[in-house]
Amino acid sequence: MPLVRIDLVKGLSEPQIAAIGNAVQKAMVESIGVPERDRFQVITEHAPNRLVYNRAYLGVERSDMQVIVQIFFSKGRTVEQKQALFAAVAGQVAADARIRREDVMVVLVENTREDWSFGGGVAQYAVLPKEQWK
Amino acid sequence: MPLVRIDLVKGLSEPQIAAIGNAVQKAMVESIGVPERDRFQVITEHAPNRLVYNRAYLGVERSDMQVIVQIFFSKGRTVEQKQALFAAVAGQVAADARIRREDVMVVLVENTREDWSFGGGVAQYAVLPKEQWK
Amino acid sequence: MPLVRIDLVKGLSEPQIAAIGNAVQKAMVESIGVPERDRFQVITEHAPNRLVYNRAYLGVERSDMQVIVQIFFSKGRTVEQKQALFAAVAGQVAADARIRREDVMVVLVENTREDWSFGGGVAQYAVLPKEQWK
Repeated sequence: MPLVRIDLVKGLSEPQIAAIGNAVQKAMVESIGVPERDRFQVITEHAPNRLVYNRAYLGVERSDMQVIVQIFFSKGRTVEQKQALFAAVAGQVAADARIRREDVMVVLVENTREDWSFGGGVAQYAVLPKEQWK
Repeated sequence: MPLVRIDLVKGLSEPQIAAIGNAVQKAMVESIGVPERDRFQVITEHAPNRLVYNRAYLGVERSDMQVIVQIFFSKGRTVEQKQALFAAVAGQVAADARIRREDVMVVLVENTREDWSFGGGVAQYAVLPKEQWK
Repeated sequence: MPLVRIDLVKGLSEPQIAAIGNAVQKAMVESIGVPERDRFQVITEHAPNRLVYNRAYLGVERSDMQVIVQIFFSKGRTVEQKQALFAAVAGQVAADARIRREDVMVVLVENTREDWSFGGGVAQYAVLPKEQWK
């Protein structure tokens, strides 16, 4: 169910970009129980002057290689689960893609189960029992 | 009012891409009464390895030509209206753009009427009577 | 905290694009008190047939140079604050980037404070006192 938009600065290698996508998915599976096959990601590279960010806001030291991960998913996660998700995403991306943890920004946007159609014109989460969400 | 982001895999023809945009708008007009002139779409093509998705999640068989339609609009639609919207978008895109219904994913994100300025620095939906929304 | 997506039609100069980004940030700082260093923007240029919009919806006369500003931020602003934000964004972009006020569309999407990690895997707004949000 998550739709994930990953925005990157140009200059990463293809294996690094693939590793970032894989790491974000793995982190969601392991930290908040997203089904493994529930993966939908849009990855976009930008010229440095098109991804604009402050290098020091909130005391975090950001480098040239900022990664913005915006996750759209249904509401229902607790604050603790969101904190676990943030830690997992930053940790996994750092471990697998040679990105600094400080460079991984994560922004969540919640909707509801009835807001998703995974193809075929059907609102799957509204009509399928949860045991079949896989 | 909807702001629609349509993400595509590179390889579609210009007429197909135009047909997808037109079909999404037509589906919104016919299924949930969006005004015909209320059209704002951002269409982005991606290399295949930048639009990453599972081919089988929830039993839907997806091809190489996944289309992700993310619709931002004000809250107020019922679950039944959303289901009608999903069916209309998938059906219209399939009919007009030679895309398989199974390849059309739709994700809704709701905000409120006061969250929209259509130009000129004005929150039109907060100040204009609904009869003038056209 | 705001994550701002700015979508433009190709054809603007580099100084104009930089001025748009700066103007949006300045407007948020001055109208609703966003911290100056709290700047995170993704700016994307599109071919004219990829940014599709009606030229007259709601009586606003739009030109070839439509600018769509989508702001994701935490809830908590009043309708009056949002109206001030819209006026500030359109006015500042017009003043600094030679864009017509009528061509500046602004769309807000709200989430909560717990939905933000600014790097390092931490939900900063959930754990840092507000005095340190700078």
